[in-house]
Amino acid sequence: MLYVVGIGPGGEGYFTKKAEEILKNIDLIVCYKGYKKFVERFNKPIYTTGMKKEIDRVDYALKESKDKDVALVSSGDATIYGLASLAYELNEKKNYNIKIEVIPGITSASSCSAILGSPLNHDFVVLSLSDLLTPLDIILKRVKCALDGDFVITIYNPMSKSRKEPFLKAMEIVKEHAEKNNINYVVGIVKNASRENEEYKITTINELIDNLEKYVEFIDMNTTLIIGNSNTKVIDGKMVTPRGYLNKYKVE
Amino acid sequence: MLYVVGIGPGGEGYFTKKAEEILKNIDLIVCYKGYKKFVERFNKPIYTTGMKKEIDRVDYALKESKDKDVALVSSGDATIYGLASLAYELNEKKNYNIKIEVIPGITSASSCSAILGSPLNHDFVVLSLSDLLTPLDIILKRVKCALDGDFVITIYNPMSKSRKEPFLKAMEIVKEHAEKNNINYVVGIVKNASRENEEYKITTINELIDNLEKYVEFIDMNTTLIIGNSNTKVIDGKMVTPRGYLNKYKVE
Repeated sequence: MLYVVGIGPGGEGYFTKKAEEILKNIDLIVCYKGYKKFVERFNKPIYTTGMKKEIDRVDYALKESKDKDVALVSSGDATIYGLASLAYELNEKKNYNIKIEVIPGITSASSCSAILGSPLNHDFVVLSLSDLLTPLDIILKRVKCALDGDFVITIYNPMSKSRKEPFLKAMEIVKEHAEKNNINYVVGIVKNASRENEEYKITTINELIDNLEKYVEFIDMNTTLIIGNSNTKVIDGKMVTPRGYLNKYKVE
Repeated sequence: MLYVVGIGPGGEGYFTKKAEEILKNIDLIVCYKGYKKFVERFNKPIYTTGMKKEIDRVDYALKESKDKDVALVSSGDATIYGLASLAYELNEKKNYNIKIEVIPGITSASSCSAILGSPLNHDFVVLSLSDLLTPLDIILKRVKCALDGDFVITIYNPMSKSRKEPFLKAMEIVKEHAEKNNINYVVGIVKNASRENEEYKITTINELIDNLEKYVEFIDMNTTLIIGNSNTKVIDGKMVTPRGYLNKYKVE
């Protein structure tokens, strides 16, 4: 049997009890090599592969699941930019007939929202800027649609060392929309969320654009951005998107 | 000090270790009366209020936080349609100067995605259809923008006994978009996710529209819908949105 397990940001405090119990009871853990450190404490055999070896990793996990209980581990939630879909797809394509169960985890949107304050407290979008598997024109169209809908926008995989274009183009679109509608969006940036060396900044789209080089230097693959909607504000240094209670009900 | 704690769907297995530890160590729990059953096991004093009494609840939690450690508990994630923003807002408005910390939880999008298969494995929107605090025209505009962006759409609070109009209008928009673009979207519906009496259905927008009465009967406030994007498919009875690996890499 294959368990596809989301472990949240990595630290023990963010594992669910269910993920914890499964990892204690399986025969083999399969994960990205960078996440081995998060699951070593279970004292199980661990098989890892690197970036761009996702198909090998999932295929190995499925093959081993024939006569073992295997956990394919993703950070965050395994169905949110994780490997759960690939597991279902390969299982079908290769006729493995393995039973698959997904265990949800704390995704980066949730952990970053808690760190920044409460920016996701109204309708929001979750969007990856990685153009490795998705054409850039689709990504940029989604940025436009999200702005048109006044959604809060959570951005995963904003940049890597060799991939800066999608981020720069996306920020250009946000800036244009902000200028046209005269909104200076609040922007929250979290690096290494709930991990060692966690850092966050709360700024605005104007400040970000005016100091673009500084922010491009700061942002990496372990960074998540949250761009507020037109009502998002800063309260006591925290980024807060009102749900609307104080518009509806009088508070004295 | 006030901890705003997301506990996931409610069952012990979905609490994070961090949420568990905080609830073991605080002096008072404040929550919606329907969720009392999920936190009684901590043997702490519990203050509850009902629906539409959110401001009273948060205000009480903040006042008690002056000389106690208080946990304001939300199901799911406290920053996603929970009470985290209201806590920050009231704290400022009433000059309480309480220290607030948010603990993330498994939101319904994650728990439902795991139950349905892996529908959130590409860019998605999280949208509430409750027009109690948000004007219906904004909600419906967001449905349109989400469809234009080909986002997977996760719908919270689809209907209550007295509030069916936003759902019916939203489905009308999805149907029109589906017809125009000749896409029969896969739709996943989860009721009482990860709770007693959990039920799920995987259908399509055409089937849903053709049997609207049956679905309106089924869907309630404890139901979450996930509408796939144009690539979402059904594999072995599960709803799966491909991330794109099998388009990019050849698998034999």
